[in-house]
Amino acid sequence: MYSFACDYLEGCHEDVLKALSRTNMVQAPGYGADPFTQKATEKIRQLCRDDAATVHFVTGGTQANQLVIDTVLQPYEGVVAALTGHVNVHEAGAIEFSGHKVLALPSARHDGKLAAADVDAFVKAFYADPNHEHMVFPGMVYVSHPTEYGTLYTAQELRELSEVCHKHHMPLYLDGARLGYGLAAYDTDVTLPLLDELCDVFYIGGTKVGALSGEAIVFPRGVEPKHFLTRIKQHGALSAKGRLIGVQFAALLENDLYFRIGRHAIDMAREIRKIFEEAGCSFFMDSPTNQQFVILENEAIQKLSDYVGFEFWEPYDENHAVVRFASSWATTPEGIEELRKAVALCLPRK
Amino acid sequence: MYSFACDYLEGCHEDVLKALSRTNMVQAPGYGADPFTQKATEKIRQLCRDDAATVHFVTGGTQANQLVIDTVLQPYEGVVAALTGHVNVHEAGAIEFSGHKVLALPSARHDGKLAAADVDAFVKAFYADPNHEHMVFPGMVYVSHPTEYGTLYTAQELRELSEVCHKHHMPLYLDGARLGYGLAAYDTDVTLPLLDELCDVFYIGGTKVGALSGEAIVFPRGVEPKHFLTRIKQHGALSAKGRLIGVQFAALLENDLYFRIGRHAIDMAREIRKIFEEAGCSFFMDSPTNQQFVILENEAIQKLSDYVGFEFWEPYDENHAVVRFASSWATTPEGIEELRKAVALCLPRK
Amino acid sequence: MYSFACDYLEGCHEDVLKALSRTNMVQAPGYGADPFTQKATEKIRQLCRDDAATVHFVTGGTQANQLVIDTVLQPYEGVVAALTGHVNVHEAGAIEFSGHKVLALPSARHDGKLAAADVDAFVKAFYADPNHEHMVFPGMVYVSHPTEYGTLYTAQELRELSEVCHKHHMPLYLDGARLGYGLAAYDTDVTLPLLDELCDVFYIGGTKVGALSGEAIVFPRGVEPKHFLTRIKQHGALSAKGRLIGVQFAALLENDLYFRIGRHAIDMAREIRKIFEEAGCSFFMDSPTNQQFVILENEAIQKLSDYVGFEFWEPYDENHAVVRFASSWATTPEGIEELRKAVALCLPRK
Amino acid sequence: MYSFACDYLEGCHEDVLKALSRTNMVQAPGYGADPFTQKATEKIRQLCRDDAATVHFVTGGTQANQLVIDTVLQPYEGVVAALTGHVNVHEAGAIEFSGHKVLALPSARHDGKLAAADVDAFVKAFYADPNHEHMVFPGMVYVSHPTEYGTLYTAQELRELSEVCHKHHMPLYLDGARLGYGLAAYDTDVTLPLLDELCDVFYIGGTKVGALSGEAIVFPRGVEPKHFLTRIKQHGALSAKGRLIGVQFAALLENDLYFRIGRHAIDMAREIRKIFEEAGCSFFMDSPTNQQFVILENEAIQKLSDYVGFEFWEPYDENHAVVRFASSWATTPEGIEELRKAVALCLPRK
Repeated sequence: MYSFACDYLEGCHEDVLKALSRTNMVQAPGYGADPFTQKATEKIRQLCRDDAATVHFVTGGTQANQLVIDTVLQPYEGVVAALTGHVNVHEAGAIEFSGHKVLALPSARHDGKLAAADVDAFVKAFYADPNHEHMVFPGMVYVSHPTEYGTLYTAQELRELSEVCHKHHMPLYLDGARLGYGLAAYDTDVTLPLLDELCDVFYIGGTKVGALSGEAIVFPRGVEPKHFLTRIKQHGALSAKGRLIGVQFAALLENDLYFRIGRHAIDMAREIRKIFEEAGCSFFMDSPTNQQFVILENEAIQKLSDYVGFEFWEPYDENHAVVRFASSWATTPEGIEELRKAVALCLPRK
Repeated sequence: MYSFACDYLEGCHEDVLKALSRTNMVQAPGYGADPFTQKATEKIRQLCRDDAATVHFVTGGTQANQLVIDTVLQPYEGVVAALTGHVNVHEAGAIEFSGHKVLALPSARHDGKLAAADVDAFVKAFYADPNHEHMVFPGMVYVSHPTEYGTLYTAQELRELSEVCHKHHMPLYLDGARLGYGLAAYDTDVTLPLLDELCDVFYIGGTKVGALSGEAIVFPRGVEPKHFLTRIKQHGALSAKGRLIGVQFAALLENDLYFRIGRHAIDMAREIRKIFEEAGCSFFMDSPTNQQFVILENEAIQKLSDYVGFEFWEPYDENHAVVRFASSWATTPEGIEELRKAVALCLPRK
Repeated sequence: MYSFACDYLEGCHEDVLKALSRTNMVQAPGYGADPFTQKATEKIRQLCRDDAATVHFVTGGTQANQLVIDTVLQPYEGVVAALTGHVNVHEAGAIEFSGHKVLALPSARHDGKLAAADVDAFVKAFYADPNHEHMVFPGMVYVSHPTEYGTLYTAQELRELSEVCHKHHMPLYLDGARLGYGLAAYDTDVTLPLLDELCDVFYIGGTKVGALSGEAIVFPRGVEPKHFLTRIKQHGALSAKGRLIGVQFAALLENDLYFRIGRHAIDMAREIRKIFEEAGCSFFMDSPTNQQFVILENEAIQKLSDYVGFEFWEPYDENHAVVRFASSWATTPEGIEELRKAVALCLPRK
Repeated sequence: MYSFACDYLEGCHEDVLKALSRTNMVQAPGYGADPFTQKATEKIRQLCRDDAATVHFVTGGTQANQLVIDTVLQPYEGVVAALTGHVNVHEAGAIEFSGHKVLALPSARHDGKLAAADVDAFVKAFYADPNHEHMVFPGMVYVSHPTEYGTLYTAQELRELSEVCHKHHMPLYLDGARLGYGLAAYDTDVTLPLLDELCDVFYIGGTKVGALSGEAIVFPRGVEPKHFLTRIKQHGALSAKGRLIGVQFAALLENDLYFRIGRHAIDMAREIRKIFEEAGCSFFMDSPTNQQFVILENEAIQKLSDYVGFEFWEPYDENHAVVRFASSWATTPEGIEELRKAVALCLPRK
């Protein structure tokens, strides 16, 4: 049975696998000092058009978030995030484990995005409060792009966020677990050089975009926390064989592979969307990326789950729930056909 | 200028001071092993009608909250609290500093109280979520009584909360920073034996109710975290001269002093209330305890502040703000008269 | 039965108690913003001859140590201390609880003191180690004065430590839990202005030197961690009634009281020493301050404990143990007489 | 230039790579719920002869240590380890970062091993100390096997350690970063079923023994900390594509591959040893595993480093230093020949 449950169902892109094979027996130093990691770093600098950027590779997204947030924040500071942000909801308290509060703002427009005006109002209210020295200082802003709901910021929205952040001396951090799918979306005006310009730190996600594991943390202009390597080690996040991630990123960033497979996923997601649209279904929100959130009757969900894999997201009303169908770099036309048949069978057009 | 800014403006009740003088040169062992602390403990057991209760004395409220929450929770758990709860807002991230998330529920009725039904719904939704193993487990419930807005739970409300907590195997913790003012309120049916029955841990506040410092943490039926003394020490909360707090609580709990001075503050608060009512003012909420939250015009606030002390609380609308007038065990009739005159002068009845 | 078990057996000096009485009903703002705290701060600045020094008052020694060390260190740093240092042994892991390692150096000369040369060698070896980025950086140095064994640094020793620290860009922190007894010792050349000159932070102990509670943390030249007040709150160490400690320190520092009662304790300790010397006993080490560590036969310890209070310190050999007799500001000549009789009875000169 | 600097210089064993290729496009659920991880778990259960063992796979050794120690310890406990233990020296404070102290015992016999008698004496002294409630409780024991110096425990030594641990109710944890090389040594009587019997938790190292990444944490008899998956997530250690490690371990444990490549490394290490013995060199200690610590003149080190890779370990005396030559599953006979020539050239037999 073909599954659309998430975007980490398969191993890695075959070019990544080939690169791992090709380099396998080359001796190289550990802890990221290998030439493959160096090559991947150079690629990222070129793509970001920032020669001074520093790059560190870690294994997974929660690890990257915990590490970046803990090292960028001062101990008396918390991270401002959307109420629905991954760091606030789905990281088992990894941020608090490292001592920091998530200052969760209700996502005004219910699309998982943080609005610059909301951040501005929150920070102003904080400093206006005569008791603010007894409170957690807003120390940085976290956004995910695409968001947890597959939505995207526009360049203008990010620019406004960046301006608000810098006005208040707060670094802007962008979680790019699915950045490849965000950059490859149609009609987006967000690019790597733009992120490099507007953010103070962001990560380019590998695990969900063609790699076996790995996320590339980028500090634009090389402004990174002191002794960051030691902090990585302290967080248990330093790979002895750093090459594993370096080789993968070097392969993903060769010849636009990362962007090409991103676009493939977007195209597959459009097919998914069309299938459900044609079945007359509604969507929880309008996602231009690889995750599609469909509202289905509970009974239909039950039926459909015998034919195709997907993920329950959240209850919608008494009779309906939101379910997620995710495409990825690995989604096949055959999979899409299976979905089409299953939907036709289980959700006959009324 | 007389001040109503808070309830910790003076030192301690004269009987407390006398007890400190009387016992001053008696030699006694440190770290809470002294006979005064033992006597205070016995008093609390009697008042709670719980011979098995264990009691530990610490210096302040945030310290008590951090210590209790950190030691009662498992590391994968967070504490459920009202959005307006002290631990969520005004403790500078002390809970997160010790590694735990505050799971903040919007206080449905905007009175600073947590409703049993809201807690129940939250916990049910948590366990119904297929991803809950990636989330922070709700591990205990925190309520303050009186709340940060001076409101009180009824015995019935606390009983429902206790039942919901225990249904879900979560300890119920009650922050009694101002418990003396809660117990002494008119028309309350909440008593110490009731708290002992319904809560798994609570503290009886001293600092704001007649002591120089000190809060008494009570574990009903003696069910306390293992090696609690070592945890107190580890939190930097163990007093070498534990007698300082022991002597004070022994004095406060002698001859109902704690309840008598609590009632005095309530009576003074009623006077405050009457003064503002007669001036035609509205209240932010209906508080039966020692804190009164009055809505005043910004201009009137400015004027009044030349004659009497009070605390700015939060903006209300463009032209109004909420201000707090707190009475305490120490409030004098002369102080009330000063307030009456100041209000008459600055807020002439329209 | 008179006790010499420790130096926190009584309440506070009568002048401190009088000051508490005198100021008791004066209204004053909370959290250290009161005039008494301001006065105590000014006194400390004068005594240190440092107008720019900032001072913060907390309740106890472990609290002060945890707070200072956690706020002064970077997260990748640990604190260098003697193996026998209080922070390494007797604080229940309070330093590690806040995320930092104690880098314990064997105290070369077995007297509880840290030698500048040992610190220098340790730090040099650290930076010479090609793997040091995988290790905890030495970030500050902790010394106690008097040490846990009652010994004292000379001005020259402290100067050397200070030079080594600053050569390696490490702040020097001095734990002065018993500083009053150190400053009042005969033949010491260490003074408050000297500490202010050589240390980057130190605290003047109150709890063990005449106060009910309280330690004064001093940052010479006002160089203190950012948002220190918020950090105090976050550690649960901010007193609502900061006046309690402010009033006490203002009284202790008035008319040299702190130094006079320190000297009294030293004189009493000399009496203790003489009593045991005359009984032919040996001392574990030569202490010029208020703690005397005597080596006694286990049998004699047993006997003596029926007549006078003291503290078991550690086993010495099969038949002997080290016990501690501490004098304090409160030790009475009558107490000394009881000790004299008890020793005469239990340890007859052979 | 061929390198013996460490045992993580190459990628992974070719059979591991083949398994990754073979399974690459199979869809499988995330977070360790995939069939490959299940298969690896079953293999480990068989090899340990423990059907009830639970197994969790994480990426690296420091991560495994931090996770296991933090989750097994109570918050008032520390981990007993050799002074030279990896957790005490080379993990950048990862243990303290999670709030726990490393209780470091001098390794009596200077071979990196912890003696049961030393642990017993330490724990007895702890509980005999009247102040032990103010100290960090010894909560578990950490040993590495092979140790950081390549030495091995005998079955008898481990059995004694296990007995002492359990007598004192402390779990025994064995860090098996290089376990493959320990199990494959000649003359060892330590086996996986023995570890399963004697330890309460241990990990089987992959990263240094043929895998690209991955360590298998084993809880014998299924006694594991509650909600361990959530704790893994909270530590940032849960892999979305858990399959990456599952596939690798399934391959490594197929047909004794893990043991065969371990033996290969041991044989290569013996060759290394012979080369230096024949050159008349001394060894820092007698290592039966893949790491050989040779004492060389500083001048010879300089020379040799032009011909072959190795790692500087620590200074020995003014003219000598200890250097490490590590073999691994990947060491080639050609590499050994290069070393032989280099040694002949640079260290001519006197």
